Amino acid sequence: MQSTQVRLASRPVGEPRDSDFDVVTVTLPDLEEGQVLLRTLYLSLDPYMRGRMSAAPSYAPPVELGHVMVGATVCEVVDSRSPDRAVGDVVLAYTGWQTSAVADARGTRRLDPDAAPVSTALGVLGMPGFTAYAGLLEIGRPKPGETVVVAAATGPVGSAVGQVARIRGARAVGIAGGPRKCRALLEELGFDAAVDHRSPSFRDDLAAATPAGVDVYFENVGGPVADAVAGRLNRFARIPVCGLVAGYNATSAPEGPDRLPGFMGRVLRLSLTVRGFIQDEFVPTHHADFLRDMTGWVRDGSVRYREDVVDGLEQAPEAFRGMLAGRNFGKLLVRVAT
Amino acid sequence: MQSTQVRLASRPVGEPRDSDFDVVTVTLPDLEEGQVLLRTLYLSLDPYMRGRMSAAPSYAPPVELGHVMVGATVCEVVDSRSPDRAVGDVVLAYTGWQTSAVADARGTRRLDPDAAPVSTALGVLGMPGFTAYAGLLEIGRPKPGETVVVAAATGPVGSAVGQVARIRGARAVGIAGGPRKCRALLEELGFDAAVDHRSPSFRDDLAAATPAGVDVYFENVGGPVADAVAGRLNRFARIPVCGLVAGYNATSAPEGPDRLPGFMGRVLRLSLTVRGFIQDEFVPTHHADFLRDMTGWVRDGSVRYREDVVDGLEQAPEAFRGMLAGRNFGKLLVRVAT
Repeated sequence: MQSTQVRLASRPVGEPRDSDFDVVTVTLPDLEEGQVLLRTLYLSLDPYMRGRMSAAPSYAPPVELGHVMVGATVCEVVDSRSPDRAVGDVVLAYTGWQTSAVADARGTRRLDPDAAPVSTALGVLGMPGFTAYAGLLEIGRPKPGETVVVAAATGPVGSAVGQVARIRGARAVGIAGGPRKCRALLEELGFDAAVDHRSPSFRDDLAAATPAGVDVYFENVGGPVADAVAGRLNRFARIPVCGLVAGYNATSAPEGPDRLPGFMGRVLRLSLTVRGFIQDEFVPTHHADFLRDMTGWVRDGSVRYREDVVDGLEQAPEAFRGMLAGRNFGKLLVRVAT
Repeated sequence: MQSTQVRLASRPVGEPRDSDFDVVTVTLPDLEEGQVLLRTLYLSLDPYMRGRMSAAPSYAPPVELGHVMVGATVCEVVDSRSPDRAVGDVVLAYTGWQTSAVADARGTRRLDPDAAPVSTALGVLGMPGFTAYAGLLEIGRPKPGETVVVAAATGPVGSAVGQVARIRGARAVGIAGGPRKCRALLEELGFDAAVDHRSPSFRDDLAAATPAGVDVYFENVGGPVADAVAGRLNRFARIPVCGLVAGYNATSAPEGPDRLPGFMGRVLRLSLTVRGFIQDEFVPTHHADFLRDMTGWVRDGSVRYREDVVDGLEQAPEAFRGMLAGRNFGKLLVRVAT
């Protein structure tokens, strides 16, 4: 069995270029006991992957040069030497940017195609949905009537944050780029208000959308959007920090002035809670509740989701660049095979 | 009865100057029912006062121009029209920078001179001690064996933070300016390690003093000291933020590079908790425990304290400037009368 793989050829400086990736086709080894042969159906593209392309210290080791780019996948089992996985099973795996892979069966989780479309295991019912659920409920802790703001709000994390906030009785304000995404926030995803960060009146629009200030700012972008929200925070506001995608391609510390003293002054004056997190931390305590709650909400329509599907593994680098620039519209997936 | 008062004459730009204060002598009004006439024994000087001198929004309204500078005091009751206060009582009050004052008896708390020296009501058993106690135990939550770092460590907040951390089984590392203060940390205040932030080898010394990294950084200074500690933080470290005295005299945003993106990146990668607080928040839940615990610890010697006493109200402006520059050595008090 052959596999086409996208490997990391060089560490990007700034925005990843095509030359930072190598595409190669290899013959996979025979299965050993306990292993399965997987055919990739969907590859998930997520902002954290930009961090793995850099050598800088982070919460997970970088992808080594010459190795396959990492990533979560939904795969079909095409051969099995594990009693727990049958040919034809569809599983969640972590096989990365490739068309086929040999994997340890224990590293996969079987999906029920009748419960929900299998692609949702990479989005609303997967890591992004769990990031939203755990970060919002455990760190953000929105109370009924409070205002929750999230950016990249049509993305898989942001759209779940807003909708779960509403389920908890809070007012959900989404920030997104462009009128099309803002319309989707109001018409598809049920946000209470949508603000376009590309509009020249962004700061005024944000103020108008948050008349009672902001109690929870779910931080996944950083940059100028975060700056604008900071000016709206209420005393005792909570800021779960799960991503800072605006700066992921930065090559040096931005020019001054130095905003850190002003930020810390605000933390002090407003008794803010700023809490970084990686969703893994909450898996032992919250994942079972998440699967139960979120599956129920998706089924009964109280949580909706949006997917942005690109066809063909060869499109992955360009789609990934687009995501870092905010050009995706919903959870970005690569359909590798059908 | 006359009172000499230090009033705010103008809002300081940068370091407060003598011309920002007016010293006037006034005749106090006669007592009304429920009031007491107080003679100031000690005036507390604290960093938060710098914030009250500015018109910028903060967690408390600014002192109005022409009004007496605010501040906590220990006073003797010299006349009383309240059944709850007798002439000769010593009380904790909030009468500010003046030699005498008329106050509502209900705004005072009677002190027991036999339980502890009355000046401690402004320090280790007062607001600074409570700031340390509540911020460390409720936000910092040190576990046995963890490392707690605090700056301005010979000051009233820092010295209590380190000693309470040790009582809870943590390793206490104090940062202070100059060898004399560092010696006091080790020899008087029982810290496990002391680091001089004025030494050219400060960063290396800090690394040597925190071989297992830093789990709690109690932030009360900001500036370059905070920068150095940031490089030592462990995953899941907690940062209670109760003050940023290094920047209190700043007149503009410091020049770049902009360190905020780097700081937020660290919050994310290390799953840090950064939490600003003002001690008032914890009074309803923690103050009774504080008084019981801290009074016991002071009596049995497990918490020691240092006072830096300046004689005469006319010395207050210069002493206050010195405190903002780190020239005090222990809790700064003005002995107004004996």
